[in-house]
Amino acid sequence: MTSQHPFDPLTGKEIQLAAEILRKHHANPTDILFRAITLSEPPKAAMIPFLDQEHAGEHPKPPARVARILAHVNGAFTEFKVKLDKDSQGVISEKPLPGRHSHIDGAYMRRAEQACLADPGVQEQVAALKLPKGATVVAEPWSYGTDGMNDMSQLVTMCWFYMRMTEDPDANYYAYPLDLCVKMSHDLRVVKILHLPSGNQHDRVTESTATGERSTTTSKEYDHRKLHTGSEYYPTLNNLPPPRTTTQPYHVTQPHGPSFVVDGHKIAWEKWHFRVGFNYREGMTLHDIRFDGRSLFYRLSLAEMFVPYGDPRTPYPRKAAFDLGNDGAGLCANSLALGCDCLGCIKYFDGWLVGGPSGLPLKVPNVICCHEIDDGILWKHTNFRTGNAAVTRSRVLVLQTVITASNYEYIFCFYFGQDASLHYEVRATGILSTAPVDLDAHGRNISVPYGTTVAPGVLAPFHQHLFCLRIDPAVDGHANSLLVHESHALPADDPTAPDPALAQNNPHGVGYVTTQQYVEDETGLDLDFTTNRTFTIVNEARRHPFTGTPVGFRLMPWYSQTLLAQPGSWHAKRAEFARHAVWLTRYPHGSSSDNHDDERDELDEMFPAGRFTMQSAGGEGIASWIEGRKKQKKQEEDGQESTEKEEKGNARNTDIVVWHTFGSTHNPRAEDWPVMPVEKMVVGLKPVNFFERNPALDVPVATQERNRSVLVDDADASGMREGDNGKGKECCV
Amino acid sequence: MTSQHPFDPLTGKEIQLAAEILRKHHANPTDILFRAITLSEPPKAAMIPFLDQEHAGEHPKPPARVARILAHVNGAFTEFKVKLDKDSQGVISEKPLPGRHSHIDGAYMRRAEQACLADPGVQEQVAALKLPKGATVVAEPWSYGTDGMNDMSQLVTMCWFYMRMTEDPDANYYAYPLDLCVKMSHDLRVVKILHLPSGNQHDRVTESTATGERSTTTSKEYDHRKLHTGSEYYPTLNNLPPPRTTTQPYHVTQPHGPSFVVDGHKIAWEKWHFRVGFNYREGMTLHDIRFDGRSLFYRLSLAEMFVPYGDPRTPYPRKAAFDLGNDGAGLCANSLALGCDCLGCIKYFDGWLVGGPSGLPLKVPNVICCHEIDDGILWKHTNFRTGNAAVTRSRVLVLQTVITASNYEYIFCFYFGQDASLHYEVRATGILSTAPVDLDAHGRNISVPYGTTVAPGVLAPFHQHLFCLRIDPAVDGHANSLLVHESHALPADDPTAPDPALAQNNPHGVGYVTTQQYVEDETGLDLDFTTNRTFTIVNEARRHPFTGTPVGFRLMPWYSQTLLAQPGSWHAKRAEFARHAVWLTRYPHGSSSDNHDDERDELDEMFPAGRFTMQSAGGEGIASWIEGRKKQKKQEEDGQESTEKEEKGNARNTDIVVWHTFGSTHNPRAEDWPVMPVEKMVVGLKPVNFFERNPALDVPVATQERNRSVLVDDADASGMREGDNGKGKECCV
Repeated sequence: MTSQHPFDPLTGKEIQLAAEILRKHHANPTDILFRAITLSEPPKAAMIPFLDQEHAGEHPKPPARVARILAHVNGAFTEFKVKLDKDSQGVISEKPLPGRHSHIDGAYMRRAEQACLADPGVQEQVAALKLPKGATVVAEPWSYGTDGMNDMSQLVTMCWFYMRMTEDPDANYYAYPLDLCVKMSHDLRVVKILHLPSGNQHDRVTESTATGERSTTTSKEYDHRKLHTGSEYYPTLNNLPPPRTTTQPYHVTQPHGPSFVVDGHKIAWEKWHFRVGFNYREGMTLHDIRFDGRSLFYRLSLAEMFVPYGDPRTPYPRKAAFDLGNDGAGLCANSLALGCDCLGCIKYFDGWLVGGPSGLPLKVPNVICCHEIDDGILWKHTNFRTGNAAVTRSRVLVLQTVITASNYEYIFCFYFGQDASLHYEVRATGILSTAPVDLDAHGRNISVPYGTTVAPGVLAPFHQHLFCLRIDPAVDGHANSLLVHESHALPADDPTAPDPALAQNNPHGVGYVTTQQYVEDETGLDLDFTTNRTFTIVNEARRHPFTGTPVGFRLMPWYSQTLLAQPGSWHAKRAEFARHAVWLTRYPHGSSSDNHDDERDELDEMFPAGRFTMQSAGGEGIASWIEGRKKQKKQEEDGQESTEKEEKGNARNTDIVVWHTFGSTHNPRAEDWPVMPVEKMVVGLKPVNFFERNPALDVPVATQERNRSVLVDDADASGMREGDNGKGKECCV
Repeated sequence: MTSQHPFDPLTGKEIQLAAEILRKHHANPTDILFRAITLSEPPKAAMIPFLDQEHAGEHPKPPARVARILAHVNGAFTEFKVKLDKDSQGVISEKPLPGRHSHIDGAYMRRAEQACLADPGVQEQVAALKLPKGATVVAEPWSYGTDGMNDMSQLVTMCWFYMRMTEDPDANYYAYPLDLCVKMSHDLRVVKILHLPSGNQHDRVTESTATGERSTTTSKEYDHRKLHTGSEYYPTLNNLPPPRTTTQPYHVTQPHGPSFVVDGHKIAWEKWHFRVGFNYREGMTLHDIRFDGRSLFYRLSLAEMFVPYGDPRTPYPRKAAFDLGNDGAGLCANSLALGCDCLGCIKYFDGWLVGGPSGLPLKVPNVICCHEIDDGILWKHTNFRTGNAAVTRSRVLVLQTVITASNYEYIFCFYFGQDASLHYEVRATGILSTAPVDLDAHGRNISVPYGTTVAPGVLAPFHQHLFCLRIDPAVDGHANSLLVHESHALPADDPTAPDPALAQNNPHGVGYVTTQQYVEDETGLDLDFTTNRTFTIVNEARRHPFTGTPVGFRLMPWYSQTLLAQPGSWHAKRAEFARHAVWLTRYPHGSSSDNHDDERDELDEMFPAGRFTMQSAGGEGIASWIEGRKKQKKQEEDGQESTEKEEKGNARNTDIVVWHTFGSTHNPRAEDWPVMPVEKMVVGLKPVNFFERNPALDVPVATQERNRSVLVDDADASGMREGDNGKGKECCV
């Protein structure tokens, strides 16, 4: 196993070995139901010297390979760490997780659906719906968004009901949401059947807090006027518009192969060097990201996302998905298809997961694709005196992964630029989650203030997508600070001012300056484009030779609304990261550096809504970490009266983590139905006075000889062309 | 000439004819110095029925072709309109423009530089600089930003001084800004020599208001420690870093040709139909933009841009460029080069301008390129029950033009999406405008609060780029309204509230709703992402069949700071559009419809800083139009006491124009030097409940058979692959 780099995900063999070790460790191996086996990343304190030595060309001894296992052992949800070193195989930690719930997965969802549809009470309610002939009922399980009205100690699952009107299982059943909702216990018994609000009155469905209660209300009969066409997307189905034939083929070729070099999980491209990782929860991760030999980031990952729905009517407030914590971006990752998800010269990375409760490794092919794109002009200047132009084209390296979270798809991409810019893009696509809505006497959808009616009887409720990008910087080293700049107009000169400075500095009223402020302590921060507020991660100890300012990398945020749910709501308590757009925390280093079983776990403070989000009760997210340390510090200060107060909460010149919460308030459009064209959100990271000059200055100028483009003749027969054949200059220089 | 569409730019022959007509019209043709000959677009009131008939398959008689001519006739700056109809050739209007100044162009700049360098006083000051041996002095003329301290009736030009240290005229002379600045009269006499502030004190250069005064201060000697390497970008120069050799070729081919069809200036692509135009001022324009046969926009163009510099020290407040009004985006347009500016299968459009004072037509080849790009995934869904995915790729049509405004480049692109989205992107690149800065005793740049010191002795001052996109909508017709939506949390339930509604609607505190408000009157509006404020152009008379709401197109703004200069400053007075991010005005229809010489000119209210920006005094921009109409309305109302008040200012259900001001507060980075990697700004327009459903639903799913991508094998020799050859599924369905 020593050929693996410490950041490499577990291989299939390692997963197999980890499962074997745990089985040996326990008397009765049949009682172990594996949920996840994943790399326990070595402590950062151990990795920093390792990476330093590695980049110095040495061959340091890597930290031990350790697997983290989540499993139900004799029914108890437990976390283990297992050392994979052949000489000292064994379980090195075992941590019971009482009151915590595992993520759900496809196998669980299938069992839940089957149990739900087999329930006589559900069948009775379905019969009462009097569905059209040929209808096939579909029940779709969802994790249960905590509402404080029910015991959270047992796993609860919701099932939402739909139907399809064709035999084809790829029919879009979200086009027919039914007036049914079922709550299931952890052992998949139906404990409650609810009916859904579908009128335009605030027709809340009341519900007692007692569990096990069975509703006796009868389903409202299905309104057959809701049957419609136009809601299918899958190409083999009937009733689809004929595909357009106008789009001509478009091929990308790289006759000498791609510009990147991949060695295992290490990628070198242009001046970039980094490692790509993959785990069941975050999906794609990036590690040890360097440009031109200089360190930029220790780790980049999407750390969590929250999708709360805005319909306040019971039971909709439970629709609130933590797609990473509850479902796992890695578990939901698509196997990408050549020529479909990816165009050009494509390198794929496979992902390894646990294939089922037995702990067998499962390879998911092609979970990440790596390829290049051309992104237009990178820089250009024409000297107007000579007419000579120099132009370079922007080549970009893309790392893409796509996940399916039930109805929805997310496309996550990192874009590496030749100018040392790095962009993270989320594209939202897939199918809107739907709910039933009544028709009026004329067969038209009634109007509901909480969503958009996108087809007859189909309400697409308002919701938010709130992503949290975790940026663990290493800007020329690990002692970093966060610097906030704003641009402010100078006051207009006032000749009557007693202060001569005010009367003289800005005679024409056009001057402006920047203010700068270090963020001294851990906190949440907000965006403000009106002051051109920017957030730059700097290394105060390294100064730029010309600007004299600390070298830095700037966050180019995506401007979007933060969480709309009330501060006191369960949504707000559970998704603390959604309160602010930018967060600064200290990296929570443990006391010892290279020890896997000390109190500190390397997943501490990795996930801004907490490690276990399934039916979480809040209080474990990023705001709570900060608040906890503030309290602790105050207690310590109170305890050591009149001694010098330590700056323990100080978040300057230290190992910091910066988090960016962004997303969209998605009030659906009719155009998002039946399948949604991608909505893009883009976050950037750019060097600011980090490099001596433009790091893309050495990109060779573009030439036609190299780029072999083709001129298109047009159908213009007006004879207006005079003397020139319309051909462009072949190259710039 | 009847083969031209009314929106087609003037051809070379038409320009020639227009000049001939004007020369015949005047007794002494040698006294005519042509500045511009461009299409006078037919009145909108005439074009609307014309387009309706045209799209109905009829062959309406086009309005007469009319040329607009700007010329100095016997020294007087005058505007003419000239009818190009052969039967009735003649000047149809002649409008003297006293106190107005023409745009400047390359020929004028060359003459200004020559006159400046030939001036004995300038030569004396240059000698006093004691420049290094081998230095070549460069003087760069700039239009004069009004400062209220000088008479504006005569054209004034500034010259800034630089040097280059090599024979190569493509050397980057901006790397050596000199301590000199010259003010020149309209007849190119040097009227003042100024020295520049270059210390970190607020060392304002005082200046009397008298014109013609010659400064006698001697130049500060050039500090030879400022000589440096690393500021060149042009590939033939020495001292450049060797170009990187890592970037492998990347070819785009379309074996069946592109998907667009071009007929003259008409472009048909996928479901889009529109016409592309070009004129000396706005450069690229778009006309009569339709999707799937439905009208969206009458006209789209960049209407103005303003680049004010933030250094308050005299004479820098004069650095404030209206790059369209003063220089002309068309006049500054690059001839794009195949394989350099454009990759793939490229269709070029040529531009026609006036080649010089004699009025000869000048063809500028390839001012606009048209081509397709692949933009990744357009929509995707995987049915998790069947594992079947449908994925489409996003093909995008790009129209690109690039302009050079002295040191700077702007790349302007329209991106047409298959999903009926339309994006407008600006990329800023080129070379920063520079100013001298002193070195300290250690040879380091001193710190100046108004800019970034990017190389020894080189200050790159803070500045803003403020663009104004003019959106003349025709959303299913010309009677449109502007609708502002916001997303707001419902109040949390309060069980103690006397109003039962408050106590019951939002029990879990998670609900939110949208508010909507029509903009009733012409006004300027601001962005607010914290409320998810959106701006949608709607047709109130057309309702969506499922949502029941008016069909609309939404502006996806670019969030950026508005003008930093003080409200009372000349900058603010001259660039009124820069005060707000969104403006709504009524289209200023004239009283008669098809008459070129009525009081209404079709350029009225086309340019949000006014038609003549050169040394403009303000009061002619978008805010003034609105204010003027408000005053007029009030006077009319006051005049007709107690009769019913007309809703004359009402901007609903009428022909409206929406303007979006966006850009960047550009506080330069060291990485922007010596040539700047593109900074992108993107504005979007998207259908919102305009189409019945996803207008890209009929895009065929992607297949490897069609897209012919290639798998890259990696150097991974770890043997971890098990049983799978790593090949992706060949296609999705």
